[in-house]
Amino acid sequence: MTITITAFERSPDGGRGLARDMHVRWALEEVAQPYEVRLVSFQAMKEAAHLARQPFGQIPTYEEDDLVLFETGAIVLHIAQRHAGLLPDDANARARAICWMFAAVNTVEPPILELATARLLEGDKPWRDERSPLVEERVRVRLKQLSARLGDADWLDDAFSAGDLMMASVLLRLKSSGMLDAFPNLAAYLARNETRPAYKRAFATQLAVNAGGPPTG
Amino acid sequence: MTITITAFERSPDGGRGLARDMHVRWALEEVAQPYEVRLVSFQAMKEAAHLARQPFGQIPTYEEDDLVLFETGAIVLHIAQRHAGLLPDDANARARAICWMFAAVNTVEPPILELATARLLEGDKPWRDERSPLVEERVRVRLKQLSARLGDADWLDDAFSAGDLMMASVLLRLKSSGMLDAFPNLAAYLARNETRPAYKRAFATQLAVNAGGPPTG
Repeated sequence: MTITITAFERSPDGGRGLARDMHVRWALEEVAQPYEVRLVSFQAMKEAAHLARQPFGQIPTYEEDDLVLFETGAIVLHIAQRHAGLLPDDANARARAICWMFAAVNTVEPPILELATARLLEGDKPWRDERSPLVEERVRVRLKQLSARLGDADWLDDAFSAGDLMMASVLLRLKSSGMLDAFPNLAAYLARNETRPAYKRAFATQLAVNAGGPPTG
Repeated sequence: MTITITAFERSPDGGRGLARDMHVRWALEEVAQPYEVRLVSFQAMKEAAHLARQPFGQIPTYEEDDLVLFETGAIVLHIAQRHAGLLPDDANARARAICWMFAAVNTVEPPILELATARLLEGDKPWRDERSPLVEERVRVRLKQLSARLGDADWLDDAFSAGDLMMASVLLRLKSSGMLDAFPNLAAYLARNETRPAYKRAFATQLAVNAGGPPTG
């Protein structure tokens, strides 16, 4: 069985680990599965061959024999269900870990993506300065709730799981904003994830692809 | 085994089926599992007892013996994995159905929620009229991609699955906007979901709770 994933030929973030192939690389490193990478250009992502695998023209995709998957959360869950290391054995604990995967992508990430959109796509609009604090406050509400639940625990539910992998990947988007500074336990939680050997290996591998920095033009 | 879910005491949508308990009710009807409902007020949702079950102060939650789950997607997946009727038997087809669950909540829903936020929370802002078309265009991009993939198929991947349940629940948020009119296959897909007996039973049950209409004040 050969696993092949797709990733940006040149990531818009220049290799800071924010592109979503990073989640999948990290998951595969946690479960010690080798994988191959097919790099795709921005143009190729919108062409029929890629759209057949990923209907929304994004990366990553995941291929394993005749199985083709898309959506980062679904790929990470597939890896976690197929190999030991990302989900607990106990059925109830597994279900709770999956709650955190969905909480990451459907509750915590949306306002963070909205903030990124405001900066990237609406940074030149006249409403930028007045609207930014509104969007930041929506992010802060979620961080406050997440911080309250995490408390002084190391991980979201007992042991490290795919739920932590997905949540840390979402929080990583805020690292450069300074917004995590107000939540020391979340900043420490993110750092705890980043020091995992599997994370470090995945990060180094995607950085090597993007060694030239972000794409120009 | 008794299943208990939580729902709004009075839903902000007045029973149009947009509150997220609807997804869970529909899933439970599809797999023919009886359930009980505990209604919670807006105030109770922010109190410690509810936050212990749902750290973000939302509904629904799901309780089954000593298991407590939150996040709609995770609850629907748990139901689908535990009971026949929402996921195919073939392992690869199951993984593909789960792709569509994540695509619904992490790719198609975010711009739709952003549009709802723009109308609900920023409807009185000076940028409303100039910004609305930008947000609508982000929604339209996703609809166009989803429409292209669906084509003239009845369901997203062969037979009806939890992936369709989640995607239809997301599209339902656009029903009153008229945006689906430009994508007849998506409008027909949504209608196909709405005519399922399980959907109808779930819809009628949540409507009965909200028979008085949306909450005032």
